[in-house]
Amino acid sequence: MKGLLLTGDYIPREGYVLSGRELDGDHRALNGNAIWKNTKLELRDDIPMPAVGPKDVLVKVKYCGVCGSDVHFFETDNDGYMLFPGHTKLPVVIGHEFSGEVVETGPEVKNVKVGDLVTVEEMLWCGECIPCRAGYLNQCRQLEELGFTLNGAFAEYVVAHSKYAWKLNDIAEMTGDLDRTFRTGALVEPSSVAYNGVISASGGILPGQSVAVFGTGPIGCAAIQILRAAGAARVIAFEMRPERRDLAQRSGATHIYDPAELSKQGMSPAQVVMDVTKGEGVAMAVEAAGATKATVPQIQQALGVGGKFVQIGMVAGATPLELLTFQTKRGSMYGAIGHSGHQNFPNVIQLMAAGLIDMTVAATGTWPLDRALQAIEETAERTGGKILVQAS
Amino acid sequence: MKGLLLTGDYIPREGYVLSGRELDGDHRALNGNAIWKNTKLELRDDIPMPAVGPKDVLVKVKYCGVCGSDVHFFETDNDGYMLFPGHTKLPVVIGHEFSGEVVETGPEVKNVKVGDLVTVEEMLWCGECIPCRAGYLNQCRQLEELGFTLNGAFAEYVVAHSKYAWKLNDIAEMTGDLDRTFRTGALVEPSSVAYNGVISASGGILPGQSVAVFGTGPIGCAAIQILRAAGAARVIAFEMRPERRDLAQRSGATHIYDPAELSKQGMSPAQVVMDVTKGEGVAMAVEAAGATKATVPQIQQALGVGGKFVQIGMVAGATPLELLTFQTKRGSMYGAIGHSGHQNFPNVIQLMAAGLIDMTVAATGTWPLDRALQAIEETAERTGGKILVQAS
Repeated sequence: MKGLLLTGDYIPREGYVLSGRELDGDHRALNGNAIWKNTKLELRDDIPMPAVGPKDVLVKVKYCGVCGSDVHFFETDNDGYMLFPGHTKLPVVIGHEFSGEVVETGPEVKNVKVGDLVTVEEMLWCGECIPCRAGYLNQCRQLEELGFTLNGAFAEYVVAHSKYAWKLNDIAEMTGDLDRTFRTGALVEPSSVAYNGVISASGGILPGQSVAVFGTGPIGCAAIQILRAAGAARVIAFEMRPERRDLAQRSGATHIYDPAELSKQGMSPAQVVMDVTKGEGVAMAVEAAGATKATVPQIQQALGVGGKFVQIGMVAGATPLELLTFQTKRGSMYGAIGHSGHQNFPNVIQLMAAGLIDMTVAATGTWPLDRALQAIEETAERTGGKILVQAS
Repeated sequence: MKGLLLTGDYIPREGYVLSGRELDGDHRALNGNAIWKNTKLELRDDIPMPAVGPKDVLVKVKYCGVCGSDVHFFETDNDGYMLFPGHTKLPVVIGHEFSGEVVETGPEVKNVKVGDLVTVEEMLWCGECIPCRAGYLNQCRQLEELGFTLNGAFAEYVVAHSKYAWKLNDIAEMTGDLDRTFRTGALVEPSSVAYNGVISASGGILPGQSVAVFGTGPIGCAAIQILRAAGAARVIAFEMRPERRDLAQRSGATHIYDPAELSKQGMSPAQVVMDVTKGEGVAMAVEAAGATKATVPQIQQALGVGGKFVQIGMVAGATPLELLTFQTKRGSMYGAIGHSGHQNFPNVIQLMAAGLIDMTVAATGTWPLDRALQAIEETAERTGGKILVQAS
């Protein structure tokens, strides 16, 4: 079958010391950027059809979204190492934000059947380690990941254990439109990353409160929509790129600003937040820009009494925080990563099925599987919204 | 009457711009270190007896503990400005961690009567501003503070609105010892500062979890005792000073280490936490040292999955945090300050009355009111525990 294969040479950087599961001898990298050199992405037509185990579902992929991590597979640093810093095992078919139709089930599968429309969690948590046994599935210590360590969904077919699959049938009933259902379904995963941060990890907001969102790419837009659905009275968005400010507007932000433009006027995002909220500040500030050196100084000023700072964007290294500011405001900070558990997937699907969020407004392009590489190149420009690859 | 009076000259530093309530023209400082020069502490016997309003209680002070802020009133920087950076209005009788007996009540007082044993909140929240109306009393915008902006309790008598007073009668019933009751009562305020952080602001722990406490002065010891009372299975304490490690032991810490000694052995506090918890880390790490540059790198490594970092110690400036570490662990951070509201005072009193915490183990010295200055000088050495001043 067809699939977008990522290959690379296993050449740990000089001086890099393998640790943890990297020592298992199976060419697994926990720090991909330290190990994979000369990576290449190539559309192949000789990917073997996945085998279907007793509890597995075989999914015929319809749409698969391009994630920032897919771009980092594609990009390399000056030493020729893949930019993506995380968990990887090559060669692998990439792609992990997908929807499709169940075309085969193993004999022991009970929760889905052939013909069901589904999306599937990317993070295949083990259910047996200490964090899993505490319900912290995103912190699983024996994780496998579709599109990172196991073949993913920029392909005609993908297989996974049925416990990671969630039905989209309620969305199909609401929309009455199969194509729209599949497009929506491919957006469940990034929406669940946002939901995990602004609701599950942080405890959410109270209806009627005001929030600020820094960075309005697909994750930031999902945060905007989910917080609007949770009753945010004002959603104040900050975004440098005009295309993404447009996405923020379509996502329901009530106030949208370009920090560069504000700066020219001698204003900061924090000052704008205080103006808009009449000096009270926001109950939640979401960092979805991955630019904490610029955003955190604004966030800590913009938070109101009891305010929550939710970090979803990824950033390496240390960020200076004024802890005393958090003390005097009774503020708190929540780190969030991943999408699994905590009812994230089913609740996002129900928000979509109820029409309370519509992430298709943040999907700005579609490419056929044969041109998946172009989809990734377009995403690498980081100007627009979510790009979908249509596999069938 | 006798009282320990803090005086100083109102000379805002060159270039300092008054703001907020500092503009009211009544010589109030929000940033004391920027305004008060040539501060002096002096025991006087000509302090006027406080007037008792219709809802006020007049308290004959028994014991008043010395707080770090009292030391910072006493100490000055190279420019001759008072070290204490916060809210102050001089001249003022200092002292705010106290117990005593009600000797007079205004005609409209209902919750206490003459003869009741009481302690009183230091932070006189207004109950009318936006944060107060949300229940965030520690974030009151019209705060007056006993011992900071209004005459406090290093004195024979002190007056306050009765709504800030809490009865100690349950402690007296338990101990059957009046002196012990008053000593315990003077320790309610600092214990409530710890309770506010490790329970109210952060949501506390689950019984059976392990915690780490960095810094075991009186606040750290209160955190240890409260977390033990909340069911912490292991309380791992880190403290540089031998006298304070002794206090940690008397407070119930299960593991106590000197970071300097660990360093000589090539070990870090975080490594010790991982050893003690068999690699799982702690559910909560409490910063009560006010030394975040040293402690925070250890805390973020020592936290387990879902771990909470509670900042109680005061520190100026920015502290670098590895936000990605908080993300991968689903960690969170809580800033806490103050002691009011959230049932902090009554719950601490009930813990004391039930014998579940005993902060007298952290009280290491007593001086009579006539020698209150020596009590502050002894506290300035920062080697021992809580020093009490006995006023009557």
